[in-house]
Order: sequence, then C-alpha cells, then structure tokens
Amino acid sequence: MDWHDSYATTAAMSAIFSDQSLLRYMCRFEAELARAQGRAGLLSAAHADIIANVAQSLVFDLPSLFETGAKSGTLALPLVKVLTQEVRNRDADAAAWVHFGATSQDVIDSALIMQLADALKLLDADLHRLADGAAHLAQTHAETYMLGRTLMQPATPITFGLKASQWLLAVCESWQRLQHLAPQALCVQLGGAAGTLGSLGPKGADVAKELASVIPFARDKSMITPVPWHTRRGALLALCSEVAILTGSLSKIARDIALMMQYEIGEAREPSEAGRGGSSAMPHKRNPVRCMLAVHAGLRTPHLVSSLMGSMIQEHERALGGWQAEWAVIPELFKLAAGAALNMADCLSALDVDEDNLARNLDALKGLPMTEQVALALAPVFGKTEAFALVEAAAQKVSASDLTLFDVLCGDERVITHIDRATLERITTPSYALGATKDFIATALLTWEGMRISQTPSS
Amino acid sequence: MDWHDSYATTAAMSAIFSDQSLLRYMCRFEAELARAQGRAGLLSAAHADIIANVAQSLVFDLPSLFETGAKSGTLALPLVKVLTQEVRNRDADAAAWVHFGATSQDVIDSALIMQLADALKLLDADLHRLADGAAHLAQTHAETYMLGRTLMQPATPITFGLKASQWLLAVCESWQRLQHLAPQALCVQLGGAAGTLGSLGPKGADVAKELASVIPFARDKSMITPVPWHTRRGALLALCSEVAILTGSLSKIARDIALMMQYEIGEAREPSEAGRGGSSAMPHKRNPVRCMLAVHAGLRTPHLVSSLMGSMIQEHERALGGWQAEWAVIPELFKLAAGAALNMADCLSALDVDEDNLARNLDALKGLPMTEQVALALAPVFGKTEAFALVEAAAQKVSASDLTLFDVLCGDERVITHIDRATLERITTPSYALGATKDFIATALLTWEGMRISQTPSS
Amino acid sequence: MDWHDSYATTAAMSAIFSDQSLLRYMCRFEAELARAQGRAGLLSAAHADIIANVAQSLVFDLPSLFETGAKSGTLALPLVKVLTQEVRNRDADAAAWVHFGATSQDVIDSALIMQLADALKLLDADLHRLADGAAHLAQTHAETYMLGRTLMQPATPITFGLKASQWLLAVCESWQRLQHLAPQALCVQLGGAAGTLGSLGPKGADVAKELASVIPFARDKSMITPVPWHTRRGALLALCSEVAILTGSLSKIARDIALMMQYEIGEAREPSEAGRGGSSAMPHKRNPVRCMLAVHAGLRTPHLVSSLMGSMIQEHERALGGWQAEWAVIPELFKLAAGAALNMADCLSALDVDEDNLARNLDALKGLPMTEQVALALAPVFGKTEAFALVEAAAQKVSASDLTLFDVLCGDERVITHIDRATLERITTPSYALGATKDFIATALLTWEGMRISQTPSS
Amino acid sequence: MDWHDSYATTAAMSAIFSDQSLLRYMCRFEAELARAQGRAGLLSAAHADIIANVAQSLVFDLPSLFETGAKSGTLALPLVKVLTQEVRNRDADAAAWVHFGATSQDVIDSALIMQLADALKLLDADLHRLADGAAHLAQTHAETYMLGRTLMQPATPITFGLKASQWLLAVCESWQRLQHLAPQALCVQLGGAAGTLGSLGPKGADVAKELASVIPFARDKSMITPVPWHTRRGALLALCSEVAILTGSLSKIARDIALMMQYEIGEAREPSEAGRGGSSAMPHKRNPVRCMLAVHAGLRTPHLVSSLMGSMIQEHERALGGWQAEWAVIPELFKLAAGAALNMADCLSALDVDEDNLARNLDALKGLPMTEQVALALAPVFGKTEAFALVEAAAQKVSASDLTLFDVLCGDERVITHIDRATLERITTPSYALGATKDFIATALLTWEGMRISQTPSS
Repeated sequence: MDWHDSYATTAAMSAIFSDQSLLRYMCRFEAELARAQGRAGLLSAAHADIIANVAQSLVFDLPSLFETGAKSGTLALPLVKVLTQEVRNRDADAAAWVHFGATSQDVIDSALIMQLADALKLLDADLHRLADGAAHLAQTHAETYMLGRTLMQPATPITFGLKASQWLLAVCESWQRLQHLAPQALCVQLGGAAGTLGSLGPKGADVAKELASVIPFARDKSMITPVPWHTRRGALLALCSEVAILTGSLSKIARDIALMMQYEIGEAREPSEAGRGGSSAMPHKRNPVRCMLAVHAGLRTPHLVSSLMGSMIQEHERALGGWQAEWAVIPELFKLAAGAALNMADCLSALDVDEDNLARNLDALKGLPMTEQVALALAPVFGKTEAFALVEAAAQKVSASDLTLFDVLCGDERVITHIDRATLERITTPSYALGATKDFIATALLTWEGMRISQTPSS
Repeated sequence: MDWHDSYATTAAMSAIFSDQSLLRYMCRFEAELARAQGRAGLLSAAHADIIANVAQSLVFDLPSLFETGAKSGTLALPLVKVLTQEVRNRDADAAAWVHFGATSQDVIDSALIMQLADALKLLDADLHRLADGAAHLAQTHAETYMLGRTLMQPATPITFGLKASQWLLAVCESWQRLQHLAPQALCVQLGGAAGTLGSLGPKGADVAKELASVIPFARDKSMITPVPWHTRRGALLALCSEVAILTGSLSKIARDIALMMQYEIGEAREPSEAGRGGSSAMPHKRNPVRCMLAVHAGLRTPHLVSSLMGSMIQEHERALGGWQAEWAVIPELFKLAAGAALNMADCLSALDVDEDNLARNLDALKGLPMTEQVALALAPVFGKTEAFALVEAAAQKVSASDLTLFDVLCGDERVITHIDRATLERITTPSYALGATKDFIATALLTWEGMRISQTPSS
Repeated sequence: MDWHDSYATTAAMSAIFSDQSLLRYMCRFEAELARAQGRAGLLSAAHADIIANVAQSLVFDLPSLFETGAKSGTLALPLVKVLTQEVRNRDADAAAWVHFGATSQDVIDSALIMQLADALKLLDADLHRLADGAAHLAQTHAETYMLGRTLMQPATPITFGLKASQWLLAVCESWQRLQHLAPQALCVQLGGAAGTLGSLGPKGADVAKELASVIPFARDKSMITPVPWHTRRGALLALCSEVAILTGSLSKIARDIALMMQYEIGEAREPSEAGRGGSSAMPHKRNPVRCMLAVHAGLRTPHLVSSLMGSMIQEHERALGGWQAEWAVIPELFKLAAGAALNMADCLSALDVDEDNLARNLDALKGLPMTEQVALALAPVFGKTEAFALVEAAAQKVSASDLTLFDVLCGDERVITHIDRATLERITTPSYALGATKDFIATALLTWEGMRISQTPSS
Repeated sequence: MDWHDSYATTAAMSAIFSDQSLLRYMCRFEAELARAQGRAGLLSAAHADIIANVAQSLVFDLPSLFETGAKSGTLALPLVKVLTQEVRNRDADAAAWVHFGATSQDVIDSALIMQLADALKLLDADLHRLADGAAHLAQTHAETYMLGRTLMQPATPITFGLKASQWLLAVCESWQRLQHLAPQALCVQLGGAAGTLGSLGPKGADVAKELASVIPFARDKSMITPVPWHTRRGALLALCSEVAILTGSLSKIARDIALMMQYEIGEAREPSEAGRGGSSAMPHKRNPVRCMLAVHAGLRTPHLVSSLMGSMIQEHERALGGWQAEWAVIPELFKLAAGAALNMADCLSALDVDEDNLARNLDALKGLPMTEQVALALAPVFGKTEAFALVEAAAQKVSASDLTLFDVLCGDERVITHIDRATLERITTPSYALGATKDFIATALLTWEGMRISQTPSS
C-alpha cells in the first residue's frame, strides 16, 4: 500500500483496486467468457476449461504488460496476447478461442464491475458498524439536550440523539440508494468490436446472458439480454454519484464532530488511540485525525464525480478519451468513500460524548433559546402580541445582565401574578421544546432496523 | 425570459424558476402550512383560511423584498413579514399564526421541491417525444448498415438502428432512475428553527404528515413522519445527479449527430427550420445548433453537480454557505437539462438520415470491416491460424489497391477452389456481422414500450 | 436586479452583465470596428460615423432578439441584422459595411472583454477597501495575542495582527496576479469567419491593431498583431481562474471569522447593521450573513472554473458547445467574486474584535501553548533532554489540575532554584513566542503599501 | 511504475512523485533546514552537518512509516522520529536540533515545491520539443490551404500553418504564464507550529531567508522574508490552474488532430510506431492513441483544479481536511500534464500531414467557401447589394449541380462581360482569402522565437 492509500482508504479496498487485482479480475472475465461460450456451444468444454484454467493461474510480468499496454492505450491487448500464448502452449486449437468475439472494453469494463461489486461488499461492513454506532448514540442521547446551531450560531435546543439520528438517516438513505443502483450498474460488458457481438453470430445474446449470470454475481438467467454499454455510462455514473453523496454525508458528520471537538466547545471528541492525533509537544492536543480524513475525502469526491460526468459525452461506439478518463477516477472514488466510512465508523462506535459540556454550552445562553417557546406559552394569558413584547423585553434584560430568562420572568410582577414559578421553570427548560424530536429519532431508528434485518455484514 | 434562458432552456422551465414563481411557491407553502395546522387543530379553520387566502393572492414589490432579503441572507424573512402584515390587515389574531413554527429553510426548501416536481413533469413531455423519436429510428433503421466507429476510427459494421437504440436506452434508464428518486427527494421540509418542530409541541409530527400529504403532490397520509432534512441533502443530491447524468446522455447523442453531420461524413443532419442554423454568407452551411446547445448543456451540468456535492459538508442544523450555494445551482441544472431534452427531442423526432452516405462511408472501407468475420467463416475450411493469415494478407492487398476484400478473395486460388462466390459475397457483406444487433434493439424498444404504457405525457 | 443577484453580487456588477448592457457592449464593438476600418481606409469616415452613431443609439426589442438569437445559437446574428437595417434606413451604402469582415464570435468575445475590463475596475474598489481594513487590523493588533489553531485545535500563540496579515497578503497577491493577467486576457477578438480576417484582405492586421488600441482600453498602437483567439482560451481562463482563487481567499477569511464568531468562542463579530443578520425571535442571535455569502461564493466558484476548463477542448476554428458553455459561467464567476469582495470589505473595515475573549480563550489553556518555548528556554540550564522531560511532566500536572504552567514551574524545586520567578513569568507568557511575527506582518503591510501607491480606486 | 502512470504520464514525472522520492525531498528539507540554522548561528556547524548527512542517507521502512503516518494524518511525524533516532545514534546533542522549530506542514509543503520545481523542468523539455514541432508545421504549411471549420461545419479557407500557429501560441502563452507564476508559488514553507516561527525567536526571519535561498533553487538572499503560507494557497493554486490550462490547450490540439484523422477526412495522422495504435484484426485501423491520452488528460485536469480550489477555504492556521486534500491531487495534475505534453510533442514533431486530402476536402466544396470574398470583389463593379444577390444565386446553382463556383460565374453573362476569367479564377481561389493569415503565423513564430532564446531544454 502506498502512502496515499495508507491514509485515504482501507487495506482491503486498496487491494481490490491494485494492478495485480485488476489483472486477476480481467483473467476471471476471460475464464468466464470461455466457459459461457462453451455452455452456449461455441467451443468445446475441453477448450473452455483449458482457457479458464490458464487464465486463472496466469502469472504476469507487470512492467512489460504496462509498457505494451501504454502504447496501445489499453491493458487488454497485452493481457490477451500473453494469455493466448500461454493457452497455445497447452493447446493450439484452444488458443484460437481466447477472448473470442470480445473487445478490450468488454474485459476492462467487466473487470471494473467485479471490482465494484466487491468494493460495495467491503463498504457494507463499515456502514453497518457506523449505523450501529449512530443508532446507539441516537437512543442513548435521545434526551441529552444541547444547543441547536444554525449558521454556526446558537438556535433553539435539540438533543444529541436527534443529531445522531440525522447522521444515521443520511447514511441509511444513501446506502439504500446504493443497493437499488448496484444491480443496474453492475452489468457485464459484452459487445465485441463495435457493440454488435458480430463475431458470435446468432449465439451472441445467449453468451451474453450466460456471462451475466455469473458476472459480477450469480443471477437468474431468465433476465433480459444485457445490452452492451460501451458508451452508455449512465447506470455506472448513477452508482458512482451515490458513492460520492455517501462520502459527502460522512464528511458532514465529520465536520459536525470537529466543530463539537473545538477546545472551547468540547462537546464530543473522537475516540483516542495510541499514536492517533496526539502531539508530543502539546499534551493538551488531540487532533481529530479521523474527522480530518473524512472531510478530506468529502472535499475530493465531488470533483471525481464531475470528472466522470464530464467524460460522458463519448463518441460513437467507443470514446476517444472519455472512457479512458474513468479508469483512475472510479477506484479513487471508492477508495475515498471506504476511508471516510472506516473513519466515521470508528468515530461513531466509540465517540467520547461530553454531557457536561453539552449542558454547559446550552446553559450559557441562560434560557434565551427558549424565548420562542415561552412567548407561545404566555400567549393564552396575555394575548399573542403582548406575550411576545413581554418576552422580548425579558430577553434584552437577560442579555444585559447575569440573570437567566427564568430569573427575569420570576422578577416580573405581571408575569408572576398570573403564572406560578413551577410553570415558569417548566417552560424555560429545554425539555419543553422537545417537539417532534422523539418521532424523528424513532423514524431514523426504524429505518435502520428495517435495513439491518436484511443486512449480512461481511466481517 | 433573459438571453441565457432563451438559448439554454424552454420558456416553460424558465417560468417555473422565475423569481415571481418562486415567491408563489413559497406562498403556497405558507397557505398549506396554515391549512395543515388547522386540520391538526393548532389554529381555527377560519384563521387558516384567512392566511391561505391572503398567501395565495399576495402581490409583491420585488425590489424591496430582494433588498431586505439580501441583508438577512434569506428571502423568507421579508416574505413572511409582508404576508404577516397583509394577514394582520384582515385579522390581527390570524396574523400570529403566519409561518407558525416554521423556519426560513422550511419554506425555501419546500418551495424548491414543488418547483422540482413541476420541472420533472415538464421534462417528461420532452423525454417522451425524444423516446418516441429514437424508437422510431431504431425500428426504421434496424437494418440500415453503417460504419461502427471506435476511438473515432472505423471499426466493424453496425446498423443505425442499433445506435438509435443505445440513445433510447440511455434516456429511458436515466428517466427510470429519476422516477425512482423523485418520491424520496421531493419530501416537504418542516423542522422549525433547529429541526425539532419545537414550537408545534406534541402536534409537530401530525402537522408534518398533513403537509407531506399535499406537498409536493397528494400522497397517502399513512406515510412515515417526514424527518426534516435541513442539512441532510443526500436524496436531493441523488435526484440532481441523475438530472446531470440524463443531460450527459443527451449530449452524447448530440455529439454523435454532430460528428455524423460533418460535411465529409454527411450521414445525418439536424432537422432544418427557417432561421435555425443557416448562414446567409455560405448557402452550403447548416449549423447543428440543436446539437451545439445540447453539448453546451452537457459541458456545464457536471460542474453544477459537483458544486452541489461540494456544498454537502454542512454545519450542524443549518449550514453557513453550503445550503445557500444550492439556490442558483439547482434551477440552472434543471433548466439546462430541459434545454438539452427539447433540442434532442426536436432532433430525434425529425432527424434527416442520409442512407446513401451511411452506405458510402461503409463501402469506402471496401469490406475491411468484415475481415474478422471472414476469418471466422474460413476457419472451418482452412483451420484457424491459416484462415487468419490468409485474411490478413488479403486485407493488405485491399489497402494497397482499388480492390475490395471480395475482389481479392475471389482472386485467391486457394479460396475460390474451396468457397463459391455467393458464399464469399455473403460473408463479406455487413449483414453477415449483424450478431446480436436485433436482440439489442428489441431490448431497447421493449424497455421504452414498458415505460410508455405508464407514461401520461403532459401536453 | 433579480433575487440571485441581490444576495450574490453588487448592483454595479450585476449591471455590467445585464442583457441590455451586453448588447450595448456589442454595439460599442460594432461602432469601434467601423471607426477602425475607417481609419484604416477600408470605408469612408462618413460611413464609419453613420454606423458608429446608429450602433451607439440603437434601441432593442429584447424578446424578439432573443428568440431569433436562440434559433441561430448566437445573439450576434439578430443584433447585426437589426443594426444593418437601422443603418440602411440612414444610408444604404453604409449598411454594406456593418460588421464588415467580422464573425459572431468577434463581437461576442470582444463585448465580453469590455465587460471584464469594467468588472475588474469595480472589483478594485472593494479590494482596496478590504486591504485597507485588513492592514488596519494587522497594525492595530500586531501584538494582540490569541490562540493559534491547527486542525481546529489549540496550537501555539499567535497575534490577531498576524492572522489579519495573512488575509491581507492572500488578497494582495491574488490582486497582483489579476493585474498581470488582465492585459493578456483582455485582448480584442477579431478574426472573421475562420480566424484569417480574409474579408479584410491585406488590411486585416492594421484594422485589428487599430481596434486593439481602443478595446478594451486605450493602448499603444505599436503592439504586436492581436491574433484571434476563437478557440485559444488560455489567457481568458487564466484570468478567470485567478478570480476564483481570489474568491477562495475571501472565503477563507469568511470561514475564519465565522469560526471566531461562534458563541462559545466570541473572538470577533461581523459589523452589525440594522436588518442584517438579526433575529426577532432570539435577541442573542447575530447571524454572520456576510461570511455566509462569501463562503457561499467560495463554494461555487471552483466549479465555474472547472466548467470553463472542461470546455477548453474546442474543435477547430470555432467550438460546438465549448465556447457557448462559457457565456453564462464567466459573468457568474465575476458576480460571485464581487459579492464576496463587497462582504469581506464590509467585514474587515469594521470588524468587531473582542480582545477580552481573545485573551480569555488563550488563557484558558493555562500556559500550555508555551510548553515548547519553555523547554527551549530551560535547555541551557538542564540540558535538552532533561528540559523536555521536565516540561512534559509539568504540562501533565497543568492538565490534571487548576494550576497554570507558571504555577507548576514555580512549585518545582529543581526549577525555582535555578531560575527566578520573573524569568519564569516571561517565558510562560505568549509574547515570548512572538518569533518572526512582526517580520511577517511588516512584509504584508509593505506589500500592500507598494500596491496602494499605484492604485486609484474607482469610487 | 503502476499501470495508471504507465499510460498517463512519463517515467521521469512518475519518479518525481513516487513515495521514495517524496521522502527524499522531505529529507533534503530537513538537511537544508539544519544547515540554514547553522549558518544563522542557531546550532553548531558540526551538528548541522551531522543532521544533513544523516538526512540525506536515510533508509526507510516504508510500510512502517506509512502505518504510523496514517494514524497521525501526516508523513512528517514518523519521518522526523526516524531521522531523530538516526541522528541520536551518531550524536545525542545534534538530535535535539532535528526539525527544530518546524512543523509537519513546513516539511511537506517544502518537499512539494521542490517536486514541482523539478516537475516544471521536466515539462519544459517536452514543451520545447512540442513548440519546435508546431513552429515547423506553421512555417512549412503557411500556405497549405484547407477548410476552416466552425461548429464542426465547413467555413472559409484557412491554411494548415495557421492552425499549427494557434496550437503553438496556445502552448507558448501558457508556458510563459507558468514561468511567471513559478517563482511566486515555489516559495519555501517555514512557519513552525502556528506560523510564527516562535521557536526560532529573533532568528526566525533569517533562517527563513537562508532556507529560501536554497529551496527550491538558489536565489538571491536579499529577497523579502518568506511569509509562511500554511493556509494561504493562492500562489500554489495559480500555478496549478495554469498547468491545467496548459493541459486543456494540449487536449484541444489532440481533438483537432483526432478530428482530422477521421477516416473520411484523413487530413493528418498521428505518427505511427510499432505497437502503437495498430489493430491486428483490422489492418486499416490506426488508433490515435496519443490524442486519446491527451484528451483523457484534458478531461480530468479541470476537476483536479476545482478539487484544489474547493479545498482553499482552510480553517485558521492549519486546515482540517483542506490541506490534506491537496496531497494526491497536485501530483496527479502534473503527471497528466506531462503525459499530454509528451504525447503532443511526439505528435507534432512527426505529424503525418496529408496535403492531398487537405486539398480534396477543400475542393469538395467547389468554391463555396469563397462566396463572401467573391461578393466583395464584385461589389466595385455591380454595387454591393447586386453583387451579393448575384453570388447567392450562383452559390445555389453550385449546390444544386456538379459545377464549381468558378464554372457558374464563367457561365453568367453579366459577370463574364465585366470580369475576365483570370480574375474570376483568382477570386475563387483560396489564396485570395488569405487575409492576415501570414501576420498571425509570424506573430506566433516570433513569440516562440523570443522564448526559445531564453530556454535551455533539459534533455
């Protein structure tokens, strides 16, 4: 793993997109293609087996492959050449059937979707862990009051459980969309030179269906014909966009935590760990490295998506540049998403929530976040207009003194003659502003519960 | 309509996103909010009616609204102020209930989703027309042979019907994804100051459900609680991304046509129309203005999406900048998509296909695009290796002379003694390379047929 | 001014890029073209005058122009038609010389650079005000200590003057680059149909030079021939990129202030103003609207630049889509930059700096930001290794108690026997860590002073 | 070199940005820092030498460095730790001075600018070769007529030399801007923990100047103090933007050539080379692999720039995510530019220009591109209005028949009685429309000649 991958992604995700791995996926395509053609009666089972066996045990001389590949602008050409040579060493007749009827883009795109299928499985595991963590925070802190903040300024009270519910919901919704999009996008590519499967004659559609039943994952063969998508990149793009949206949501969580972790605010802290985020020079320092990495990912992924979208205007049956511009970008996108998911899963499953500081920062406003609620509560007594004027005056007194809103109201003759202290205390307390908070939390938890049942996390 | 909208979009789409229109959608939100709160028993039906009636007949002094709005950074504040004043003129008590419990973002986001719901309906009409046009081309030209082109160079033969099928499929698939995403994204926004609906007390969730049943379109009330999405923008982003993907697909069609319309190629031409694309100076000139506008759209939309995605990292309960950065971008995105859809619908529903030139350009290769097929056809006779060598030699002869591949093969003793001229003619003819073309076309047509049934195009 | 322009830019910048204004700039081009051709002897001075006079007093029927323009994909065509008609009404012979030898792109690009020249002048005024404000802050607060923050966590002390100097320097450097780039980018466009000035025969180069001497601003005529740049957009792009970089720097300032303005931190506040950022509901609330608008701009401009860059791959002598994709994007870019410049100029020229809170937040760390300095100061006495160990132990004691670093050191026998209290006080005080702060501030001030001399702000 | 680098860049550029290389540049910073501090009298020359020597011969255990680096979010921490340990093994006292007063970002940013300085030198060589190639084409084909094309349709005649001149000028201008920007952007980073150089006390500015005199390249020491730019990224961004603009210009050249290389047009072809762009299946095929790779680069670089710009809104004294988001993006940008420069240098220095096809495609228009010129030439005889009407009628006759414009005019009684055939031939010939073509070519050649003198290409 190089330095970039070390900080930006996970080892497992990095492995999926390594060059060695890409070549293995390409070989798997060639193997499955031969087998599918064998089943369709294009070549003998024996020949198919030879090709498949050679393909799956092929050893590469990477520098040589890359040099030839760079000249022709495709890694498929040198790979097929090497594979053909190896098959010929075993059986000259079988060699004629290597990569039969397929084009470079068939093997490269099909390898990509196998990579993406495996990448999504990896993502699942961290998203599962993250959702569990967020759900736990949502439940535990359903009534842990804190300052709601809009435009980075104090607003009305919320609970930390509501904030965690929003995080949970954002991730769950994105994940659901990924699950919806994956089967459409992860469709085998098989079209031959110009997308007609001309070389396969009348058996083209059958071979394509056969192949689609095993790549990227076993599916019912009754499906409709997989039409080649050499220059029809929409479904792939939709999946990639959603991966970036997911990363954006993860970054939003990270920025929230980084803001809460500011020294002066101190409401939550990334879980600490030896060697992570510390500073020998300043013992008071704990850098939010996980948040930093997630935000870093979220700053980069939008541009990877626009890079892909900007390459969609592809010419005719195979693009000059537009397709090739996807190659490095899609792996980068998935790697960054994986890094962000790992870091936020780590974060949310062991977040260090400081309830004292949550309360302290809310209390520092001395009841002002409750002014709107108080005015509404006083309205039945004073009439709306007077109630609002009364509260506004009280608020100004609070701002100009050390008194709380409750203090000021208790000291107001007009108020105290109509409303008892117990009521005043109740309506100046954050819990009085709970509103639909619990419904919202419940909805988020329910959403995750619904998904959780059908999830089987890969370890 | 200003100059930019004049060329970039349709009059109808431009109207949806005009300032006047935005304010009307915002008023509709305020009206429906009052009504929903009335139904939930928060205020009297009479008060709700007054607010709704005033909201829906409100007249605006735009410059004044905008000036105040710019200072506070939101158009909601001045609108609510004006609305409250007008309601107060009718009934002072009702005025206290204007915009009750809602926040600026509630009305602005809800107005946006009403705009988007209407925008998608508009798009439907042009997409329907476009799909009909593409389907017609796919059927009519199912066997109109032409040169397939990869990396902008001649490849093997395809049919023009296949190309049109790919266009059709790209649009249909994107459209299907839009239809799947719209109900998720187009969810009413109602959260109050910090997303708790604190001011609505225990009735918050009910009011939200009531409102969701009428905005943006009538839905079953039994749905789950609409959780506010003030800083959870994923569903909205997914919809917007798909609109850009659609535009990318439309641009791909446009670029294909522009390439085919090059003077030296002349395979297809945009439909001509008085005042469109002509040039008085040069009578031979017919500019592909529709393609130009669609490509222009496709060059811009990726960046609008990344602009939206780059604004997703939103702070706490309302963003400082990230939300506001969406305001001008989302309308632009939909407007460009509409312009591209209109232009490509116009194009495909009356495309001027030049079958002579399609044939001429294919014939100019003198059979070379058939070499792969011919080799495969000769293999049973000569063995694979010899067949390929034989064809390669023939191809070189073709390239170096005026002879066609058929001519050369007929002149080759070895060949002609084994294979008769009729067979040679057949296997050097494009139709022999049809492969799965018809299956692919059929799948595309079937896809559109399936969608068509459930579509009711707006006029 | 529409709603978007109301919040996103200034009235003056909005005016420059209005449709009416664009047409006037286009007319000015046609007028100057006729005059330049007159001076070059292509047509009579009388004819040139007629064209120039008509062009500069032309009245437009916008809807009709836009409709025709949209069909042909260029606003130049209908404008030239109307202009020719009006000139013909005065003098039929003169009419033949309208737009003579020029192409649509000549007038549209030339109008653009006149707009940009005026736009840059407008920007100058706000940048001047901003730089004055930042310089004043840098000087006034050269020794106002505050907490330096890295990764949003406390680091070592800095002064607020240093922070302001960095803001100043960022803007000045960007501005200097703009001044360097403008003369290259703002070059008249004159190439005729395909960039040869074929219609002007041997006088083409002369006319181009003549025109370049008056558009966009008077220049020495001895300059080299202005080569048409129809599809050579580099210089324009470089200017546009720098405008986005400037906006990015302005956004960085805005984010810094918004972070300092958080309630719990309270180190600085946007200047307050009636109707700006206040909230009737919560008197304690002062929204950082100016920062919000600057951040909003900085979130959008990167994507406008990539939109322009993504459109650079332009075909042959005039692009199909790539050029047209610039039209709406460049004005947007300059408008957003102007909005950010206005808001940050307003902010920095009257920033409400809270010195008490700056000190409070620094003091809250109880001397810990000085640990590195203290260790270095003790090294000559204790040796480096022991000094560091000693300070690390002291820091841990500070973190675990209510004591300051100074307290702990004074209570350490080993320390107090070697170093007197006065010295200990000095080396635990932020001023001891000033380092090169004053050199850096001086450099920034010097940079602005150097620029200031040659600046004459437009009011 | 991995697969991506193999096709996307050059081996030399890939080497500059390898992990090993990055660490060596970082070590060089640490060495030069120690030496500069030695010269400034902060530490003894002996200690400085020990540090410098160890730093420059340090051997790394990459996996271990990366693992620790990933946890702390910076590669600097583990590197400094290893370096300190190695120095301590030689001299315990010297170890205390390793990385003295510097922060992680100082070494990482300084290493970056050393990489960029070397990267620009590499680019120079290919740009020089490219410019020589383009200049040669511009001169050789100054009068090789061809069809000018606008909106991908025939326009008036140009010469191929003019087209090559535009390519040349685009590259030269971008290159000049790079040379102007490099000295500003490539400034050593040295600020210490929070940008004050606090640990260096009064010697901070001197050390910074000393260091700036050797990093990235020897400069005069009298320069002003290099102010740290930890969160002031404008100059770096300006340089990066220009690299993307250069790549955009290279892509434009590539697209032009790819369009000219279309089979039906055949005006120019990439130089052929064994193993490059060929296709065993179809001997007629020569894929424009170099153009493909350059276009691929140009499709990606805009998004890398917006990624960098979108990361400019950096918090306080060191960003949380924004700085880290630059790390992988800047190398990618330079690598893609290098790949595009190499490919276009290869292309232009041996472009296969097909003068026959250039002439054929122009002739196919049968004189129509000359209509505008002919009308102007006939005007003195017939009056403008009649001349234009006459030519328009002639043009229609040309379009509807096999006759050329010259034929039709010769057959027109009115014309032939006034104008002799020789004149008619002259004014219907492309050379008559040369206009300022030669001036434009001369300007481009002069620009390159001016630059060439001061260029010393690295081999």
